Amino acid sequence: MTTNHQFLLARRPVGAVQRSDFEYVSTPLAAPAEGEVQVKIAYVSLDPAMRGWMNAYEGSYMPPVPLNSVMRALGAGEVVASNNPNFKVGDHVAGMLGVQEYANHNGAGLNKVDPRLAPLPLFLGTLGMPGLTAYFGVLDAGQLKEGDTVLVSGAAGAVGSIVGQIAKIKGARVIGIAGGADKVSYLTKELGFDAAIDYKAEDVSAAIKRYAPNGVDLFFDNVGGDILEAALNNLAMQARIVICGAISQYNSTTPPKGPSNYLQLLVKRATMRGLMVADYYPRAMEAITTMGGWLAAGKLKSREDVVEGLQNFPEAFNKLFEGSNNGKLVLKV
Amino acid sequence: MTTNHQFLLARRPVGAVQRSDFEYVSTPLAAPAEGEVQVKIAYVSLDPAMRGWMNAYEGSYMPPVPLNSVMRALGAGEVVASNNPNFKVGDHVAGMLGVQEYANHNGAGLNKVDPRLAPLPLFLGTLGMPGLTAYFGVLDAGQLKEGDTVLVSGAAGAVGSIVGQIAKIKGARVIGIAGGADKVSYLTKELGFDAAIDYKAEDVSAAIKRYAPNGVDLFFDNVGGDILEAALNNLAMQARIVICGAISQYNSTTPPKGPSNYLQLLVKRATMRGLMVADYYPRAMEAITTMGGWLAAGKLKSREDVVEGLQNFPEAFNKLFEGSNNGKLVLKV
Repeated sequence: MTTNHQFLLARRPVGAVQRSDFEYVSTPLAAPAEGEVQVKIAYVSLDPAMRGWMNAYEGSYMPPVPLNSVMRALGAGEVVASNNPNFKVGDHVAGMLGVQEYANHNGAGLNKVDPRLAPLPLFLGTLGMPGLTAYFGVLDAGQLKEGDTVLVSGAAGAVGSIVGQIAKIKGARVIGIAGGADKVSYLTKELGFDAAIDYKAEDVSAAIKRYAPNGVDLFFDNVGGDILEAALNNLAMQARIVICGAISQYNSTTPPKGPSNYLQLLVKRATMRGLMVADYYPRAMEAITTMGGWLAAGKLKSREDVVEGLQNFPEAFNKLFEGSNNGKLVLKV
Repeated sequence: MTTNHQFLLARRPVGAVQRSDFEYVSTPLAAPAEGEVQVKIAYVSLDPAMRGWMNAYEGSYMPPVPLNSVMRALGAGEVVASNNPNFKVGDHVAGMLGVQEYANHNGAGLNKVDPRLAPLPLFLGTLGMPGLTAYFGVLDAGQLKEGDTVLVSGAAGAVGSIVGQIAKIKGARVIGIAGGADKVSYLTKELGFDAAIDYKAEDVSAAIKRYAPNGVDLFFDNVGGDILEAALNNLAMQARIVICGAISQYNSTTPPKGPSNYLQLLVKRATMRGLMVADYYPRAMEAITTMGGWLAAGKLKSREDVVEGLQNFPEAFNKLFEGSNNGKLVLKV
């Protein structure tokens, strides 16, 4: 009988997650029920949003992960058994598979992916949820226009790095904010950003003013907190802010810091809009096809940070919040 | 020789304004220079935005009022001398005339008004800046749709009372937030709001949830602070928030409170937009004509709170922040 290793959410984390917030269990693998497929998971996606799913708060866009159930996570793997006519053994799939070795899944929201087109981790990154977030966040929610000055926070991350590159492809000037000299160098030397700001070493507001003296037309925010305030201080007239996330606040044990200078929206006649990638899933093929083409043409670069070993989940997950990951963070099972 | 009484800004107020923040002076009235008109001011408009103009902060939509100069204010009066071909003696005008008895004005931004159509204070309220703010804020920035559930804060004020009434005229359900039983009663019994919340007596978030169980489609915010957070907690999907002002924060001696739950924008795919009425001045006649018609037809009600005596400016101005004004606050010179 096959054994399944799983991370169950044992309690609601306070601050950064700890190993003791989870229970790492071995359970006998059940056969897939009627309508289910069984997936052998190859990669678990580690995404900042998972931190929110661990909280008890009911008012978010997804219900909390119930205690003592498998931690929710995107993942990619191979179908090893199927009672669902839409999937057959040998299909590769990506979807909400959980932090575990095997998932029995009813198929809803599970997408077939083709590993001959791209390595599996790419379907959790640039050709997956983070890539779609960037694509629709810039082009739809952000209404990018050629010649815009674009600022993106979390710029070396899975979403931010694609945001900046898409904006460059579409003729914008792009400024990234990231932590550390290596990331800043990566953004300007590898990804072609026009400028990058090291928030750990510089006054962010002053640096934005230096690189965008006429103001920021589009700010794509993954970080929140002080960086959101610095951006609000440097908006151009009619600026758009796309709120994608607030990773600086997710581990906070006090209420998140709201932007105290939000009245700059009024001063600059600006708009702040919340982005939820799931709204764009019906248009996923448009983004995947376009970005797949850019990847193939070398116009878009993608980097994955692969941590080996399911058992390392809690520590690997915290790399997101320490900013120590380089590119899309995935756990290789 | 005629004497002009004026309030000069003597120092930057800390917290609520005090009489000692101003110097009340008598000066000989100079003749209007070439190109200027001389206006005998009948009414000085008292508006929350004036508190911001008193601060030293340079990053707002208007420069600070310089120290030792006449306090900036809208007003209405009669032309008593003219060296400007666009205005003649006897014309009635409204514009940025300052807290004083007489203004010599170059005519830029000064509008002729017809006191036979409406009393002069109305041109500082419903047919002036606050009314235009409400009209374009609801219909343009707020993209009001028939059937929307609309929430407005500062609902008994010059802007809020018109916001709610326009929304009702356009077929929305309207909930107002105001302070005190009298204002709440005024909103529902006199102005026809569907519901009103007394923020001094009720848990605002719980009350919004009770009156808008399916969420708020459009929130028009004049207040900021805790009330903005309460509204963010109760948004409908695709909600729009129009940020008009934040009167709860203008006297604060600490940085304004940003909305700690702004990530509800993401949860609800909502948009928060800053409104600046000056952007709509080229379309002013559309609003004045439409609202003038509604006033004449009894569909729109307007209330002015007239305080007598220019010398009472500081105390009268503070009524706005105490919430003790009933309707559009003006000072009768």
